[in-house]
Amino acid sequence: MTEKKTYLLLNGPNINMTGLREVGIYGRKTYQDLVDLMEAEAEKCSVALRVIQSNSEGALIDAIQQAYFDGLSGIIFNPGGYTHTSVALHDAIASVPIPTVEVHMSNIHAREAFRHTSMTAPACAGQIAGFGFYGYVLALHALLEQKG
Amino acid sequence: MTEKKTYLLLNGPNINMTGLREVGIYGRKTYQDLVDLMEAEAEKCSVALRVIQSNSEGALIDAIQQAYFDGLSGIIFNPGGYTHTSVALHDAIASVPIPTVEVHMSNIHAREAFRHTSMTAPACAGQIAGFGFYGYVLALHALLEQKG
Amino acid sequence: MTEKKTYLLLNGPNINMTGLREVGIYGRKTYQDLVDLMEAEAEKCSVALRVIQSNSEGALIDAIQQAYFDGLSGIIFNPGGYTHTSVALHDAIASVPIPTVEVHMSNIHAREAFRHTSMTAPACAGQIAGFGFYGYVLALHALLEQKG
Amino acid sequence: MTEKKTYLLLNGPNINMTGLREVGIYGRKTYQDLVDLMEAEAEKCSVALRVIQSNSEGALIDAIQQAYFDGLSGIIFNPGGYTHTSVALHDAIASVPIPTVEVHMSNIHAREAFRHTSMTAPACAGQIAGFGFYGYVLALHALLEQKG
Amino acid sequence: MTEKKTYLLLNGPNINMTGLREVGIYGRKTYQDLVDLMEAEAEKCSVALRVIQSNSEGALIDAIQQAYFDGLSGIIFNPGGYTHTSVALHDAIASVPIPTVEVHMSNIHAREAFRHTSMTAPACAGQIAGFGFYGYVLALHALLEQKG
Amino acid sequence: MTEKKTYLLLNGPNINMTGLREVGIYGRKTYQDLVDLMEAEAEKCSVALRVIQSNSEGALIDAIQQAYFDGLSGIIFNPGGYTHTSVALHDAIASVPIPTVEVHMSNIHAREAFRHTSMTAPACAGQIAGFGFYGYVLALHALLEQKG
Amino acid sequence: MTEKKTYLLLNGPNINMTGLREVGIYGRKTYQDLVDLMEAEAEKCSVALRVIQSNSEGALIDAIQQAYFDGLSGIIFNPGGYTHTSVALHDAIASVPIPTVEVHMSNIHAREAFRHTSMTAPACAGQIAGFGFYGYVLALHALLEQKG
Amino acid sequence: MTEKKTYLLLNGPNINMTGLREVGIYGRKTYQDLVDLMEAEAEKCSVALRVIQSNSEGALIDAIQQAYFDGLSGIIFNPGGYTHTSVALHDAIASVPIPTVEVHMSNIHAREAFRHTSMTAPACAGQIAGFGFYGYVLALHALLEQKG
Amino acid sequence: MTEKKTYLLLNGPNINMTGLREVGIYGRKTYQDLVDLMEAEAEKCSVALRVIQSNSEGALIDAIQQAYFDGLSGIIFNPGGYTHTSVALHDAIASVPIPTVEVHMSNIHAREAFRHTSMTAPACAGQIAGFGFYGYVLALHALLEQKG
Amino acid sequence: MTEKKTYLLLNGPNINMTGLREVGIYGRKTYQDLVDLMEAEAEKCSVALRVIQSNSEGALIDAIQQAYFDGLSGIIFNPGGYTHTSVALHDAIASVPIPTVEVHMSNIHAREAFRHTSMTAPACAGQIAGFGFYGYVLALHALLEQKG
Amino acid sequence: MTEKKTYLLLNGPNINMTGLREVGIYGRKTYQDLVDLMEAEAEKCSVALRVIQSNSEGALIDAIQQAYFDGLSGIIFNPGGYTHTSVALHDAIASVPIPTVEVHMSNIHAREAFRHTSMTAPACAGQIAGFGFYGYVLALHALLEQKG
Amino acid sequence: MTEKKTYLLLNGPNINMTGLREVGIYGRKTYQDLVDLMEAEAEKCSVALRVIQSNSEGALIDAIQQAYFDGLSGIIFNPGGYTHTSVALHDAIASVPIPTVEVHMSNIHAREAFRHTSMTAPACAGQIAGFGFYGYVLALHALLEQKG
Repeated sequence: MTEKKTYLLLNGPNINMTGLREVGIYGRKTYQDLVDLMEAEAEKCSVALRVIQSNSEGALIDAIQQAYFDGLSGIIFNPGGYTHTSVALHDAIASVPIPTVEVHMSNIHAREAFRHTSMTAPACAGQIAGFGFYGYVLALHALLEQKG
Repeated sequence: MTEKKTYLLLNGPNINMTGLREVGIYGRKTYQDLVDLMEAEAEKCSVALRVIQSNSEGALIDAIQQAYFDGLSGIIFNPGGYTHTSVALHDAIASVPIPTVEVHMSNIHAREAFRHTSMTAPACAGQIAGFGFYGYVLALHALLEQKG
Repeated sequence: MTEKKTYLLLNGPNINMTGLREVGIYGRKTYQDLVDLMEAEAEKCSVALRVIQSNSEGALIDAIQQAYFDGLSGIIFNPGGYTHTSVALHDAIASVPIPTVEVHMSNIHAREAFRHTSMTAPACAGQIAGFGFYGYVLALHALLEQKG
Repeated sequence: MTEKKTYLLLNGPNINMTGLREVGIYGRKTYQDLVDLMEAEAEKCSVALRVIQSNSEGALIDAIQQAYFDGLSGIIFNPGGYTHTSVALHDAIASVPIPTVEVHMSNIHAREAFRHTSMTAPACAGQIAGFGFYGYVLALHALLEQKG
Repeated sequence: MTEKKTYLLLNGPNINMTGLREVGIYGRKTYQDLVDLMEAEAEKCSVALRVIQSNSEGALIDAIQQAYFDGLSGIIFNPGGYTHTSVALHDAIASVPIPTVEVHMSNIHAREAFRHTSMTAPACAGQIAGFGFYGYVLALHALLEQKG
Repeated sequence: MTEKKTYLLLNGPNINMTGLREVGIYGRKTYQDLVDLMEAEAEKCSVALRVIQSNSEGALIDAIQQAYFDGLSGIIFNPGGYTHTSVALHDAIASVPIPTVEVHMSNIHAREAFRHTSMTAPACAGQIAGFGFYGYVLALHALLEQKG
Repeated sequence: MTEKKTYLLLNGPNINMTGLREVGIYGRKTYQDLVDLMEAEAEKCSVALRVIQSNSEGALIDAIQQAYFDGLSGIIFNPGGYTHTSVALHDAIASVPIPTVEVHMSNIHAREAFRHTSMTAPACAGQIAGFGFYGYVLALHALLEQKG
Repeated sequence: MTEKKTYLLLNGPNINMTGLREVGIYGRKTYQDLVDLMEAEAEKCSVALRVIQSNSEGALIDAIQQAYFDGLSGIIFNPGGYTHTSVALHDAIASVPIPTVEVHMSNIHAREAFRHTSMTAPACAGQIAGFGFYGYVLALHALLEQKG
Repeated sequence: MTEKKTYLLLNGPNINMTGLREVGIYGRKTYQDLVDLMEAEAEKCSVALRVIQSNSEGALIDAIQQAYFDGLSGIIFNPGGYTHTSVALHDAIASVPIPTVEVHMSNIHAREAFRHTSMTAPACAGQIAGFGFYGYVLALHALLEQKG
Repeated sequence: MTEKKTYLLLNGPNINMTGLREVGIYGRKTYQDLVDLMEAEAEKCSVALRVIQSNSEGALIDAIQQAYFDGLSGIIFNPGGYTHTSVALHDAIASVPIPTVEVHMSNIHAREAFRHTSMTAPACAGQIAGFGFYGYVLALHALLEQKG
Repeated sequence: MTEKKTYLLLNGPNINMTGLREVGIYGRKTYQDLVDLMEAEAEKCSVALRVIQSNSEGALIDAIQQAYFDGLSGIIFNPGGYTHTSVALHDAIASVPIPTVEVHMSNIHAREAFRHTSMTAPACAGQIAGFGFYGYVLALHALLEQKG
Repeated sequence: MTEKKTYLLLNGPNINMTGLREVGIYGRKTYQDLVDLMEAEAEKCSVALRVIQSNSEGALIDAIQQAYFDGLSGIIFNPGGYTHTSVALHDAIASVPIPTVEVHMSNIHAREAFRHTSMTAPACAGQIAGFGFYGYVLALHALLEQKG
């Protein structure tokens, strides 16, 4: 009997506040709704999910490294505000051989100029932006497709 | 009996050469393979597909406007090299009320600096980059999700 | 009996969508209303009008060159989104000895930063921006004044 | 019997030297010729004209504020060299509810790069550049058209 | 009997070293002196103070979020070196409805160019810089004034 | 009997229009309300106030120099639109040994990019922005604190 | 008996106006003179020439792709105004394995700054600029030399 | 008997404070000492001197225009802080046919970056910087030499 | 008997992954090999070593401050990805009087442009880059030499 | 009997190392092979060749000036690394009336960004880049064509 | 009997071509005329002159260092094209305690943008530009005044 | 018996002035002291040293090329002011297969912005900055370590 693959659902700073405030951009659902949605989707796709959210850049790097040591198969990563500034997260993603998909709920390309470029995306397999919670579902499918 | 929604699959310059050359970046499959894949997926999702590829910026704008006049329900758009320079395409997308998803086969954020910013994405619902042909499938799903 | 002078009323990408969408910026009147207004004004001023709209940069250049071969006396030109990027249109205007007036319905200087500079204006006699359809009327008067 | 509307014809630094020097760019006519032309045109259009020229940024702001206190109906404004640097003039125009048209005799878009952008135009209804004295006449018509 | 409002006094990286070193810029008093001063002032103003200092960007975000969950009424925040780079802190402040005042002991506008712009200030009610410890007192008064 | 210290309350271009227009940003109170508020506060603090507002950069420099010749003890200065462009005002402040506090009613760091940097602040003791009229009160307290 | 190689002589926007206007920069000879010169030179070198000029970016891309499908051996390409802006043409040249030589009649490095960089040259074998019609002859020789 | 030529000694903002403050950069002598020195030198050279200092940009422009109307033969001009920002002063100098020499007491090229470029110098005959009061004497000699 | 000096060997984000991945740039040896090498070298030089690695910016600042409180004599610091962005680390180093040597295993000057500048180096005694593990040994010798 | 024209074949820094190293970019042939090729070509074209290579910017300027004093008829110049930085070489070429052709063996437009612009090309008749040794032959032909 | 002071008259690249070519900018007189003029002026001022011109950056640095070893009293230096690029010359001037005056015959501030900034001026006492040969005379007087 | 390896100790412009002036930055020891130190260190390490200092960019390139022709084993190179500008030196280092270590006595990252980037470092094995003369010793050890 083969074991299920495990994917890391990794969310960066302030994503835990989703749905509590700034309803205009991200909609009314909460971070817990997102986790529930993704766990349901993962089960449907027969993969396990490790769920981590942190406001700390260092903790996010730790989580990526731990994913490597534990043999995880993919990372769905919303780096939040660190997207646009973090060389360290870029290097963390680049330093592990796990395919990573960058997700943003809002269309970052349509917001302030400093959100148009991503320091982390070059180290990822790809980027999905603008589809709210559903972007995470798309990212899961993208990982599944990649690995075959 | 309700009629099927129609989506426009719109590809810009040089996408018709996919698979013939530059295998390293996009893989070995051709533009025709992409069309076949998408038509199969559309049928699976019970939507019709209008398929247009053009090397001409003006013809792409024409196609977006025609989609509006014909009441199409969504646009899956890979603007190719015009992504990074075309104000006119930005304005064309912004001037019609059809949800548009920008797709790039390669991870444009990991290529030359002039490919990191998109003139057209701010007028789109979102952007998907880096997943080869499968990005178009994800875009189709994103449109279906958006529209309920 | 002298023949009437002919002016070219040349409109670029998306101007044909005027009044159909984005009412907030340009008002409710359509492109056809603009053409009617300008033809009435031209008759009042005893000049003939050649009316062309195209979404294609190449077709706009063709129209400028044809105006030269046909001996037209002036060009009223709204280059739309090509205003900010097109070296080729700049060169087309510069390569014919016909006075050209650049027109923008909206005040481009009050919109996004990428609309503040014009590649085409340096090759024109002048630029008029911010007066809706009436800017075309002003442009016609400016051409008449110059030549009259 | 209704009273005539009054418009402010406001000219900034060095416009009073027009026609005395630098004939190549602006032509041979003087600032007084401009005033005469505009007063004749105003009379033809049944509006009164308040005429002010100053080399002082502060005096120009004073004139804009006074126009507001006196209930003037429009401003035709050539800010001269302050066009490209004055946040204070931008704020002055934005702080009064009088429609303002920016005018430049020369085609500023075809001169030195520092003349291509205008700090003041974003606060105006629109901008007219490149038509010599006649640009002021066009501006007067644009104001009349706006106000019905 | 009404309960006292609580404000968060939040200090970022290296503020805990104040007075120990770099006397030239900030004066001789220590971080503990600052806390004592602010607690005295808070008592005088009949508000409670929650005092947090951390060198970690993530912990600062945690503190802002916790202030929201605990219903605090205002934040006095010196983000230290994160002021100039942290999108994540900007987003944290913007994601809670608590008025926040940014404080800097030194006049950051008079120091190195990279200290002249603040990533966090746009999400705050305002910024006070250059008045040493007393800037925190001013910030407290500004919060009290705002809330009536 | 010691004489009262005198402070200069200096306001730059368009501050005199406060409360008449653009209510959204600064609130409904007028410039005269600001002067009244500050005179009351000054009396409460036992200092005299010299009140000057001018739209002219030169007159503002004159006022700063006169404050020096008359032995004033501090300057509360809102340079308005000159904040972002004036080297001459920077030099004027730097050339007198009077502590100067820069005040902005709005949070300039949250407005257009050209308002994020201040040419004058480096020559001041500090800057206070975002607290409406109350920012002037804070500035007065900051001056009093500085001088003991 | 071996067949002659065929080269594509591809000219972009406004090159068809050569010699009709702007004599100062390019000399008095017309586009037809250029074609005649190149056909004579091609015959001398025993190669065939396909001659295409278009003002349309899309048509130029089409021509490059057609050259690939028809097995042409080289491209002599003057992209005109598209040289400095066209990512799409860059990609078109890069997507076919045909050696391409970029030619400019004028010395673009001595003209306006926006003509100093070429978007298309990085995808070409090399660039020749400044030698009028003769640059095309040099390009033909360069192609012949390359291919042995 | 020929009349003496008259030169304008024109000093901009804050030059009147010379010697009162900021001794480190300009030395201990006052503005009046400068005037005395220059009047002595002018007499030695048999030229008359018109001496004007103003903190107002507009008044400086007025003085330049008046010099033209009065037939003055040269201008020795230290624009102070306006040097680096004033398009209007540039245009004023360019609009009169009087040779103008720009003088700076300090070596502006060795101070803050924003003092390294001069908006006004391109309209002058030349620039002299770094020699304190003696730079004005050199400027006078330069004007005398130019005019023979 | 004198006590041995203690140096802090401080490594930032992802350095703990050294040798596990990205062999091309840094070689096959692991972080533990680095620690062993440095402890051997320290013993040889009769100094003690405190060894800390963290992915967290805040923890690195904590370590630098602790080094100060514990009276350590030098810091050998590889800030990893924080090198290029961290004002907070710059300030931490500047706020303690301990000589610090910045080390990079790779030649950062030969990698991506964003790695060419260091925010932290200006606060250090010097920087050593490009010599793999041996760079740490050189840094130790540099510290020893400095302290005599 | 007429004398042969003489051309200067001038090569800048490191060109003498051609073929010894960096075979990938320039091919296996040496600088001496280049000289031999050019001398053969010159003889075929009935012109004499003066051959100079130097690593010194000053010596290259000397060579250009000497070419002027000796009445040479053209210069074929590869400025090597000085191409992108030397104002002095630009001025040297501009200061002599000898037509100069700039040659680069590699396609500089396809290499590092700092090689895309040429300080020297604006002073030359034209530029040829990307054709290895054969670019020098083309340059010789270009000079012959120019001079008839 | 006191010995005469010696000044170094140092001219950089292409100054030796003065008067031979490019008459428009610098006038018809030659470099030898300049030397004669300066030797006459030096004699008049009772100082000796060491005259050096070189096209080589290294030789110019050598000359500055030799001036130091030989105890010269001042340097009049026109660095020609090296003005705008040479850090090495800046350092050479800064490394000797001899007052240096930078001279440019043309008004560099009115020429191409790359001539507006000087790398060498910050290390000099001052800069004189725009007065042809006479600028050297002014520089000599400036040196005499400084040391006098 | 094996021959000793020879290393080139190469110093660029103004390094020969070390210790004579600008004591503040580099200390009191002279260039000759540096040479003595390095010769002693080389002997200790059983390698020979070739010592060259030149102010000329060309001579430095010559020295690097000669090192190649003579089979030297490493280069310790302080390019002085050429560090920040010289493409030619970059190419010279890149064109020889000798490991090169760039050394700067001062911490260039803590000085003027134009000293923060190095044109030459990308072609070197690594860079050492900030350790005075001892940096050269470290560089020698780095070379020895590299070569085993």
